[in-house]
Amino acid sequence: MLLSPAISVVLVESQGGRNLGAIARVMKNFGVADLRLVRPRVGHRSPEACRMAVRSVEILEQAALFESLPAALADCHLAVGTTRRFGRYRDNLLLPAEAAAMVATLPMGQRAALVFGREDKGLTTEELDCCQRLLTIPADVALPSLNVAQAVGICLYEVAKAAGGGENPSPAREDPATGAEYERLYDQMRQTLLAIGFLDPRNPGHIMRAMRRLLGRQGMTSREVRLLRGLLSQVDWLEREGRAARQPGRKQG
Amino acid sequence: MLLSPAISVVLVESQGGRNLGAIARVMKNFGVADLRLVRPRVGHRSPEACRMAVRSVEILEQAALFESLPAALADCHLAVGTTRRFGRYRDNLLLPAEAAAMVATLPMGQRAALVFGREDKGLTTEELDCCQRLLTIPADVALPSLNVAQAVGICLYEVAKAAGGGENPSPAREDPATGAEYERLYDQMRQTLLAIGFLDPRNPGHIMRAMRRLLGRQGMTSREVRLLRGLLSQVDWLEREGRAARQPGRKQG
Repeated sequence: MLLSPAISVVLVESQGGRNLGAIARVMKNFGVADLRLVRPRVGHRSPEACRMAVRSVEILEQAALFESLPAALADCHLAVGTTRRFGRYRDNLLLPAEAAAMVATLPMGQRAALVFGREDKGLTTEELDCCQRLLTIPADVALPSLNVAQAVGICLYEVAKAAGGGENPSPAREDPATGAEYERLYDQMRQTLLAIGFLDPRNPGHIMRAMRRLLGRQGMTSREVRLLRGLLSQVDWLEREGRAARQPGRKQG
Repeated sequence: MLLSPAISVVLVESQGGRNLGAIARVMKNFGVADLRLVRPRVGHRSPEACRMAVRSVEILEQAALFESLPAALADCHLAVGTTRRFGRYRDNLLLPAEAAAMVATLPMGQRAALVFGREDKGLTTEELDCCQRLLTIPADVALPSLNVAQAVGICLYEVAKAAGGGENPSPAREDPATGAEYERLYDQMRQTLLAIGFLDPRNPGHIMRAMRRLLGRQGMTSREVRLLRGLLSQVDWLEREGRAARQPGRKQG
C-alpha cells in the first residue's frame, strides 16, 4: 500500500513486550515494515510480543537494533518525533495529519522516520532535538497520555490516508436514480396511496411532500426505486383484489 | 473536549480483558465516557482490564451491560457499525473521517454510537443491520484486521478532530428517530410485507436489509417513522379486509 516513500517506525527504550507486538501488528495493518529499536528494555521476540503481533511476527523478527537515536536515524531524510510536552516546541509542532502529509509527499528514495519514546516518559529533550519536526496528538486534558501502540496506530493511519491508501473502498454508488425515476416513483406512489385511502384527496400534497423529503434526502439508487415501485405494485394488486372481492355478486374463489 | 453530541462506544461480545482496558483508556484520551457492553465474554472489571485502563478505570466501572445490540442502541440517534466485510454494503460505507464528521455534527441532545464487534469475527450481518451507517478503516490487504482497541482509537481520534474543527452548522432536525423507533418500524414492516406476499418467507432478510439501508442511510425523524407506520397500518387493514372479503359465505357489504 505504502510503496514510496520508505517509512520507519523508531521506538526508543521500549518497556512493554505487548506494546511491541501491538505496534508490529498496526504497522502491518498500514503497510509499514521497517521497525527500529533503540536500546529496547524488553525482548522484542518475547512470547508476549509475538502473541500480540498476530501475523506480523516477521516485523519483530526483522527489527533492527540501535545503540542511539542518531544511529537509528542516520539514513532518514525526515524524522518526526512525538511528544506531549509542547511548551517549548510550539512553533515546530505538527498535528498527525500535517506530519502525515509531509511524510507521504517525500520524494522517491527518501526515508521518513516516526519516532516514539518510552511508555512512561516519552522522548527526552535531546532525543527530540534529533528530529526535524515534532508531532503531537491532541487529547483530553483529563488523560492526555496515549498508549504508545495507539499513538503509532493513529500516526500510521494518517500517513496511509495521506499516501492515498485511505480512499473509500466503496466505488461510486451503483446507478444513482435519475430525476425521471424519482418522478415515476412519486407518481405511482401518489396513485397507490390515494387508492388505498392513505392520502386525503383534498390535500394529497402534504404527505407526498414528506415522502419526497424522506426519500430524496438519502439519494436512492435505481435498484431502490425499483424495489419501492414493486412494493407499490403489490399494494395496488391487493387493493384491486380486495375491491373486486367486495363487489356484490362476485363469484367467490 | 467532546461535550456535544453524546457519544457511546458499544462493544459486542468482547473477548479480551486487555482490549477492554485499552479501549477505556483511549476513550478517556479523547473525552468519551459512555461504554456499553453487549454480552461481554470477559469480565470488564478484571484485574487485566483495569491494569490496561490506566487512570480510566471509572469508565470500566460505569460501563452499562446489555443483552442485545438493539437494546444498547435504543436511545441512540445514529449508530455507526464497523466492518471489514464491505462487499454487500458498498453504497453505505464511510471512512473514519466521514463518519466522524457525521457524529461530530449531530445536533445537541442527540446520541451517536460507534459499534465494534468481536475480536475474531467482528459484527454479524444482523448486527450491522441495526446500524444506520457502516464504517471501515482502510488497511493493507496483507493484514487488514486491526486490533479492536486500535480501531476504537482511530475512530475516536477522528471524532475528536472533527468535533474540535469547527462549530456545528446544522440546527437540530426535529425529533430524530431513536434506535428503538427504527426497530419497531422494521418489525411492523416485516410483518406487513410478509402478510401481503412481498417478502419471500424463506428469505425475508434480503429485502428488509435493502429497506434498512435505504431508510437508515440519512436518518429519519420520529414523525417520518410514524408516517411510514401509519402507511403500513393502512396496508394491513387493506390486506385484512381483502382476505375477509374473499372468505366464502361472508356477507357482502
